[in-house]
Amino acid sequence: MYKLNRIDSGVCAADGFYADGIHAGLKANDALDMAFIYSDTLCEIASTFTTNKMAAAPIKHFKKKGDFKTNFLVINSRNANAMTGSKGVSDIDEILSSIEIEGLVNPVMSSTGVIGVRIPKEKIIAGTTKFDITKREPVNASKAIMTTDSFSKTIAFEVVLEDGSKFHIGAMAKGAGMINPAMATMLCFITTDADVSKKKMQKILDKTVKTTFNAASVDGDTSTNDTVMLFANKKSGVYNKEAFKEALHEIMLFLAKEMVRDGEGATKLVTYNVTGAKNDKEAEKVAKALSDSLLVKTALYGEDPNWGRIASTVGASGVTCKEETLKVSFNDLCVYDKGEIFFNKEMEVEAAAIMKLPAFTISCDLGVGKGCFTAYGCDLGYEYVKINADYRT
Amino acid sequence: MYKLNRIDSGVCAADGFYADGIHAGLKANDALDMAFIYSDTLCEIASTFTTNKMAAAPIKHFKKKGDFKTNFLVINSRNANAMTGSKGVSDIDEILSSIEIEGLVNPVMSSTGVIGVRIPKEKIIAGTTKFDITKREPVNASKAIMTTDSFSKTIAFEVVLEDGSKFHIGAMAKGAGMINPAMATMLCFITTDADVSKKKMQKILDKTVKTTFNAASVDGDTSTNDTVMLFANKKSGVYNKEAFKEALHEIMLFLAKEMVRDGEGATKLVTYNVTGAKNDKEAEKVAKALSDSLLVKTALYGEDPNWGRIASTVGASGVTCKEETLKVSFNDLCVYDKGEIFFNKEMEVEAAAIMKLPAFTISCDLGVGKGCFTAYGCDLGYEYVKINADYRT
Repeated sequence: MYKLNRIDSGVCAADGFYADGIHAGLKANDALDMAFIYSDTLCEIASTFTTNKMAAAPIKHFKKKGDFKTNFLVINSRNANAMTGSKGVSDIDEILSSIEIEGLVNPVMSSTGVIGVRIPKEKIIAGTTKFDITKREPVNASKAIMTTDSFSKTIAFEVVLEDGSKFHIGAMAKGAGMINPAMATMLCFITTDADVSKKKMQKILDKTVKTTFNAASVDGDTSTNDTVMLFANKKSGVYNKEAFKEALHEIMLFLAKEMVRDGEGATKLVTYNVTGAKNDKEAEKVAKALSDSLLVKTALYGEDPNWGRIASTVGASGVTCKEETLKVSFNDLCVYDKGEIFFNKEMEVEAAAIMKLPAFTISCDLGVGKGCFTAYGCDLGYEYVKINADYRT
Repeated sequence: MYKLNRIDSGVCAADGFYADGIHAGLKANDALDMAFIYSDTLCEIASTFTTNKMAAAPIKHFKKKGDFKTNFLVINSRNANAMTGSKGVSDIDEILSSIEIEGLVNPVMSSTGVIGVRIPKEKIIAGTTKFDITKREPVNASKAIMTTDSFSKTIAFEVVLEDGSKFHIGAMAKGAGMINPAMATMLCFITTDADVSKKKMQKILDKTVKTTFNAASVDGDTSTNDTVMLFANKKSGVYNKEAFKEALHEIMLFLAKEMVRDGEGATKLVTYNVTGAKNDKEAEKVAKALSDSLLVKTALYGEDPNWGRIASTVGASGVTCKEETLKVSFNDLCVYDKGEIFFNKEMEVEAAAIMKLPAFTISCDLGVGKGCFTAYGCDLGYEYVKINADYRT
């Protein structure tokens, strides 16, 4: 048995971790635009990156290093350092070797912002001189990595095992479109003092990302810069697999939902519960088709309980299904059941009331097997168009 | 050699074909809401239907009949007769057997409109009493099948062969979202007096649909009711394969582009020319990813020449590609070439001017093979959200 206690200190929750955000002049108006995470003990890193073939320079730089330990991560916003070719990678080498902080080992870098513009090296190198690695300002760090985000996203747990021993795990993330290649990549940095090996945590991370970040969608796109990094400095000397797994899942699911809730222009967080599919893979296909469908997303925004769009999207997803076995519900209100049309004015009022909630669940039981998957999405309204049509200008 | 002369008479261009639209009380304000196509000679039919697993009742009804000839098609708007189960199919039987017009053989039906509501049989049967099969009003017929369309869509050709012999082919279509399951399915009806066999025309239709309707996207969805039917009554006694192929391709490409141009809220028609892909299939994947990407579509609406979003979408599509071989152009203006970043303020002005055009081309050469595909898409603006969020209420 173990207990997860939610605590406040984000990426500084774990022993030995320090972080802060500063203004380097990338964003206007003194807004924080660069952050660091420092550990006073070397860390092993588990990581997962975008599947986009145009992966940004920081990702290529990280992967090129192979197996290594580090104690320092620097992050900038406003420029993604993507589509910048080999120059983008050598820019990172130059930046990292110019940081005048003693004792850094294999520093790494992460970026988010505009694609296709060389990174402003001088400003960023000058920015690193403002870093004070004795600072513990996790909220500043999380603000510095924001782009189109309307709020910063952090979470941390103290994990207490049965014998009273403890470890900590904390995180920060940014992202408001699953991608907005102009601005809003998804980044997540997690720190822990749990005594976990790289191999173990990589395995747990890979599994957890599937049901959390990979199940969340704002606009169905995959950025050039998407990154999750998990830093473990082992300082607590404590580890319990089940507790670690649960804490990591809670953290990543919370942050994934926070991103969808903060989806560009989104007004609602919708959970898509797909059950009764031929297998889990087909359930995932349906859940993601629903969370990505423009027609479903605009109906959500219009608070229109148009179950016909849901059914049609299920049918268009290409999985095994038929109208005679499909069941559709909004929260606990069943609106269509196995070929029976019974949706009337009264039910429409009831369903419309559910759709006015800031968060609700749409369930589809396909009735053909035991496969299930849960995805998270949001509506699409005028603000999304505004943010994405008007950015850069 | 042969010549295609564009003529005006839509689905009545071919000898022996009659059509009209009437008001049956399905739409408000006396708007035309039912249409027929009649041929005074029996027709063979080639057809292609939605891949949506929730295919609507008219499609199930048609497929169930197997091989048959017909001389009559009835079409209604405002109700898709979809998700209506076996009752939806028997409703069609009842409607068709109630039509009091002499000499009808195997009449068929097509529907578009709201999903998940039983079709109003009485109104529709009463509507059929207003049909006059001696009428040739192709524009009325094309107006009657409109839903969210802002203009009606017809086209016809007289095809003159070298020896002076002629045949005709004409069509009407509706569709303004590739799907809006609430309203805007894509339907296309083509009539011809060419002396072509069912087998031949089915083969040509299957091939042509791939590069025309299946290459056009407003919102990336596939309706429950999507239908293309090609009726041939052979009255001209004339046929030439190449001429027929070209005329059919011209007709279907024109109507596909008209649908995209009429895309809900669209202000531009964009042609995506993808070349240099590993194979044609990968080129198609990229072209469709671009035409469906929310981020690309909103950038188009904002007239923002954000080539980074194009590159990122290519990378996210999962095909073989890399930034070192990619080339991106807006019309003839190359904005990114094989790893070189040279996009500057001047080019931005030039590119933005191209994006203000009502129609332009975005070309992506992947530089890894010889595969190519052309797709057609539109932008996504506030009007799309308005149409799709506010419908039904």
